[in-house]
Amino acid sequence: MGEVAANGFSINGNGHVYNDAYVNRNGTANGHAVHHANGNCNGITTAVATNGLPGIRNRAFGDGRRRCFWYEEEVEENLRWCFALNSILHTGVSNYQDIALLDTEPFGKALVIDGKLQSAEVDEFIYHELLVHPSLVCHPNLKSVFIMGGGEGSTAREVLRHKNVKKVVMCDIDKEVVDFCRKYLVVNREAFCSSRLELVINDARAELESRDERFDVIVGDLADPVEGGPCYQLYTKSFYELVLKPKLSHRGVFVTQAGPAGVLTHTEVFSSIYNTLRQVFKYVVPYTAHIPSFADTWGWVMASDHPLTIDAEEIDGRIEQRIKGELRYLDGETFMAASTLNKSVRTSLLKETHVYTEETARFVYGHGKACHKS
Amino acid sequence: MGEVAANGFSINGNGHVYNDAYVNRNGTANGHAVHHANGNCNGITTAVATNGLPGIRNRAFGDGRRRCFWYEEEVEENLRWCFALNSILHTGVSNYQDIALLDTEPFGKALVIDGKLQSAEVDEFIYHELLVHPSLVCHPNLKSVFIMGGGEGSTAREVLRHKNVKKVVMCDIDKEVVDFCRKYLVVNREAFCSSRLELVINDARAELESRDERFDVIVGDLADPVEGGPCYQLYTKSFYELVLKPKLSHRGVFVTQAGPAGVLTHTEVFSSIYNTLRQVFKYVVPYTAHIPSFADTWGWVMASDHPLTIDAEEIDGRIEQRIKGELRYLDGETFMAASTLNKSVRTSLLKETHVYTEETARFVYGHGKACHKS
Amino acid sequence: MGEVAANGFSINGNGHVYNDAYVNRNGTANGHAVHHANGNCNGITTAVATNGLPGIRNRAFGDGRRRCFWYEEEVEENLRWCFALNSILHTGVSNYQDIALLDTEPFGKALVIDGKLQSAEVDEFIYHELLVHPSLVCHPNLKSVFIMGGGEGSTAREVLRHKNVKKVVMCDIDKEVVDFCRKYLVVNREAFCSSRLELVINDARAELESRDERFDVIVGDLADPVEGGPCYQLYTKSFYELVLKPKLSHRGVFVTQAGPAGVLTHTEVFSSIYNTLRQVFKYVVPYTAHIPSFADTWGWVMASDHPLTIDAEEIDGRIEQRIKGELRYLDGETFMAASTLNKSVRTSLLKETHVYTEETARFVYGHGKACHKS
Amino acid sequence: MGEVAANGFSINGNGHVYNDAYVNRNGTANGHAVHHANGNCNGITTAVATNGLPGIRNRAFGDGRRRCFWYEEEVEENLRWCFALNSILHTGVSNYQDIALLDTEPFGKALVIDGKLQSAEVDEFIYHELLVHPSLVCHPNLKSVFIMGGGEGSTAREVLRHKNVKKVVMCDIDKEVVDFCRKYLVVNREAFCSSRLELVINDARAELESRDERFDVIVGDLADPVEGGPCYQLYTKSFYELVLKPKLSHRGVFVTQAGPAGVLTHTEVFSSIYNTLRQVFKYVVPYTAHIPSFADTWGWVMASDHPLTIDAEEIDGRIEQRIKGELRYLDGETFMAASTLNKSVRTSLLKETHVYTEETARFVYGHGKACHKS
Repeated sequence: MGEVAANGFSINGNGHVYNDAYVNRNGTANGHAVHHANGNCNGITTAVATNGLPGIRNRAFGDGRRRCFWYEEEVEENLRWCFALNSILHTGVSNYQDIALLDTEPFGKALVIDGKLQSAEVDEFIYHELLVHPSLVCHPNLKSVFIMGGGEGSTAREVLRHKNVKKVVMCDIDKEVVDFCRKYLVVNREAFCSSRLELVINDARAELESRDERFDVIVGDLADPVEGGPCYQLYTKSFYELVLKPKLSHRGVFVTQAGPAGVLTHTEVFSSIYNTLRQVFKYVVPYTAHIPSFADTWGWVMASDHPLTIDAEEIDGRIEQRIKGELRYLDGETFMAASTLNKSVRTSLLKETHVYTEETARFVYGHGKACHKS
Repeated sequence: MGEVAANGFSINGNGHVYNDAYVNRNGTANGHAVHHANGNCNGITTAVATNGLPGIRNRAFGDGRRRCFWYEEEVEENLRWCFALNSILHTGVSNYQDIALLDTEPFGKALVIDGKLQSAEVDEFIYHELLVHPSLVCHPNLKSVFIMGGGEGSTAREVLRHKNVKKVVMCDIDKEVVDFCRKYLVVNREAFCSSRLELVINDARAELESRDERFDVIVGDLADPVEGGPCYQLYTKSFYELVLKPKLSHRGVFVTQAGPAGVLTHTEVFSSIYNTLRQVFKYVVPYTAHIPSFADTWGWVMASDHPLTIDAEEIDGRIEQRIKGELRYLDGETFMAASTLNKSVRTSLLKETHVYTEETARFVYGHGKACHKS
Repeated sequence: MGEVAANGFSINGNGHVYNDAYVNRNGTANGHAVHHANGNCNGITTAVATNGLPGIRNRAFGDGRRRCFWYEEEVEENLRWCFALNSILHTGVSNYQDIALLDTEPFGKALVIDGKLQSAEVDEFIYHELLVHPSLVCHPNLKSVFIMGGGEGSTAREVLRHKNVKKVVMCDIDKEVVDFCRKYLVVNREAFCSSRLELVINDARAELESRDERFDVIVGDLADPVEGGPCYQLYTKSFYELVLKPKLSHRGVFVTQAGPAGVLTHTEVFSSIYNTLRQVFKYVVPYTAHIPSFADTWGWVMASDHPLTIDAEEIDGRIEQRIKGELRYLDGETFMAASTLNKSVRTSLLKETHVYTEETARFVYGHGKACHKS
Repeated sequence: MGEVAANGFSINGNGHVYNDAYVNRNGTANGHAVHHANGNCNGITTAVATNGLPGIRNRAFGDGRRRCFWYEEEVEENLRWCFALNSILHTGVSNYQDIALLDTEPFGKALVIDGKLQSAEVDEFIYHELLVHPSLVCHPNLKSVFIMGGGEGSTAREVLRHKNVKKVVMCDIDKEVVDFCRKYLVVNREAFCSSRLELVINDARAELESRDERFDVIVGDLADPVEGGPCYQLYTKSFYELVLKPKLSHRGVFVTQAGPAGVLTHTEVFSSIYNTLRQVFKYVVPYTAHIPSFADTWGWVMASDHPLTIDAEEIDGRIEQRIKGELRYLDGETFMAASTLNKSVRTSLLKETHVYTEETARFVYGHGKACHKS
């Protein structure tokens, strides 16, 4: 990978970006003075003092000066979402996709693959808690998890918080993305080092087919289905039926990220993924949440041949018992609300007739050629 | 040449903009050929042929050409939300604020006041159904409603769908905004003409103080509290206690829009409005929903001295009984989910200690000087 | 409310846009109150009072408020030039191209065809004076002029200022563009009505071939050569040699606009057009000028089989004698400087070996499919 | 200075950015493989192979993919000039101003101070050749030069090309900017090391006042006069008269950069600086050139009490004799054209009556607080 050294946050050589202290966005991770660019045109750089000494300018929000560096995401060709950019921390390129780690003003560090924001420091917990914990918590006796994609490492990180998980297989096709994230995303460093994690560089379909074992939960952390990309094949009915489902253990649960799920966007792929899974599994639970940095509500779908209904209290109990540390977004009540869709989307989902096959694929806008959401 | 009248949607001289057919975004309102600009740089205008004659290009979405006209909203100084612009349909100016009606690609017609999107054709139903119906439905015996602000007319429109409402007083300070919307927002024209609507141009506080009658529901459809603007006074504890509450009838309910309520933005004003109302009313219910064109989750707070708890089924029953036509976003289940906040926001709201007074006001970013959200 | 008709410059019903008073940018054309949008987000519209009445805000430049409507031109895919937009005055579409008349903050009214700025109110005089007058002034005994393209009307307007011109043929392929400009560009209205103007809708090559007469000057006011467009054929050696030159009278002069001519851009097409004309004519004079609204220096090339050298004083004399009104940009000295290229471009032109043929065409970036520069 | 290490071009530890090979924009400086981000959204990074091995993608211009990183300069509040950004190479902050070195797509490396482009790799030669050589060449017997400002080092670099210059004093107020440029602008490294260069960190006025010696040429390479900034005092009549002129030797020449000089912008400060110098010196020569990366024509003014007229041939002769290496933009003819203003600007300059004093200063738009143009 043609990686570019440009670590604006390199502090004493070991722990840099994706600061562990991101829970407290304004927190300072250590006692060092950190100087970083803030993308401000009339004040390009910022000295963040931690010692309270006078004379070091602390440029807070709202100083009225113009930002002159921008990251511009083309949500659709007629809609742009633009973040003031502090710096371009790292960039890299692989055989599959291009990757960058940015430092943005509004959302902190941000991982961008092929021009699409994958994950932002300040709200990635919403995406990853919702992707991982509902299905893992629903499983009565969780031991093993298979992650399709997930190269960023955050999904594995959340899975590994489950104390009773013995084994996590994470299978991403893109070695360079995995290496990039392992190197730069400090917040996931521990997860990448876990002895419970088996990291495989392979196509998820090939990997699943080649394995004999079954998994209690399979997590789909793939990129959205994209025209011309190979990845949409991992959203088809035949893949679910013939490859994935046979690898689920008794009472196994499958969950996948399912693309934009807003009132205006849920028919791009969310409703179709939902309907496709309904053809393959007996119990299918769609749920959604607004992710600020995505400028949209996002969707996930959980599916199993065993009932997935546990109530809020039971969820809270299992979270308490099984998960290390405290969740920030998810609890029983939150999941109840997230899985109760509004009338507009709910009605629309029930009317959906499209089934995802290799011949009838639907695609989201402009997601390049990336296959694995990392 | 398919030349375009500046009113890009002028059709047969009576109903123009904010086309009544906006429920079906892609629907064509009639059999006429409609020429409209599409903001496309390599094809600025579009001739939508209905006669199938060759030589007239039909430029659909996704034609890959660049858009060259843009509406740019500065969500914060480091965050921009940009819509391809088809045309600037109408603009106006008042003593209080500036107003424009745009035709945007991604969200249809859009009303902008002082550089802030107020309402967009394709999703304004989410905001207005949630602002109006929960409190009106909760009231056991609804007859009269007072709207503070609401000059756009959409709030009155939703209130007037309640068959048992006898009287709606809508009190907006800005005559020009009201006149602008009455003239151009076709979708609200019927509401503006209703004999049940009493339209008053006045400061809401002065108007409430001057009236002897009480109302079953008071709806706050004001602009967000803004530094330097007079409007934040309509969010203070003393206003709620001394002016507003005395004008609520027995079992009366107050509801107000309460600003951004996303995981990253709810502490701007939402949590504070919630906490302030808790000082004044016995029962306070905050609820939220993602509004795509706002690029954020939005918040509302409902308050009363009588319990506001009715269940999903009861809500559905009352909607069925009382409301003309079908709601698109709201039903019982939707409200249950909307009023169940996620752990992150819920926890934060409970910790909020700020009470809104004239001395301790909090403000949202950059909302100009507008007072009344129309 | 100072409501704005969509035609922001509609004054007393007859002469509207492209105000004749544009010479004085800040001048007011008359005693009427003119309300126009100024694209300002915290103050979308402006009431320009001429009567000094209080209460009407006059929002001057520099008020610090953000502009929220923008016209964005993609100069190249990595370079954007963005104007705050007051309003989109008119748009139209033809069989060949799309057209819009904008009201921009920095450059006044602007004509845009296929996403490329053609001409802006505040500086179009530079382009048109330089396109027209040097060759017309050089001709010792000027009577007839043929304009290839020029649908905007400004080129004809400048030609018609020459008192001794008896006949101007303007030949543009795009009737809709001509009609659009005739209708909306007030500044050219008189020219369009001149009895000395013969307006032909036809391909310039076909028109020249079909005519028996010869012209003293032929002016090329065509769009830049564009890949896939038919127009580049009007820049080829064979066209110049076989079609155009035979239609020049004894001592006839040909002049053409020749695209960007900046230090960084002159090799796109300028140097090549220059070198091609050198293959066909004995005397070839390239000259350039910076046009602010184009964000570049522009080039023109004049060619003849008779010497084109007249000195500054002689030019001034002829301008004085022959041209009605006063020129704003051009005089003898100016032309001397404009036709003295800087070392960088001059050296590069002399090294140019490319000859424009139908097989070896060069193109400028992204100029759509437009053929005739109007 | 809180400098941020982020050198995207760091190659073998010594010569990096501001590549010496910038004369040939597409040239490769060496045989090393250079990986750099190209700001392309669907392909964020680029591997530029020098070995021709297959499999390494070479992403040239025109690949049709969107750029997602942008540098946005607000030329005026209603006009933006945006460059696709490859990377933010270095940023720094001083007591006076903020500084960044960018790698931009359209103009190569670019030095930005307080949100204003100072200098771009691909065309800085135009600015610096015109600032330095005309006055130095005009002087009959040049030995010593004083540079006010010029922290970037490019002005000193050009001065040092004059073989007969014995001593150059460069006086910039901002040590951090000087250090930044010395460190990162490889192209000026040799100049910074010259034994003929005396580098002083001081206010230019104070420095001149404190010195007894006189200089043959004084070069003003200061930031444009800016409201609220101290720098405009170095443009006043009293400074020129009382401080600067006494430090010029017999036949001494003063030259200063004089801000935007386009048809639409020359009255911001150019005409006023010209008129002010006319109050102080007998011979004053304004001249201009379009600088692509500035999106404007720029102005300089040369002044002396001795005639400044030498002809093109004489200039060429002296350039040949005195200057090391070949100039790229300037020669005798070029200077003749550059100092012949177009009618529009020339007329306007002659009408200018404004004289720059501390009480009557004029300012250019938004140039922050920077004083010294480096």
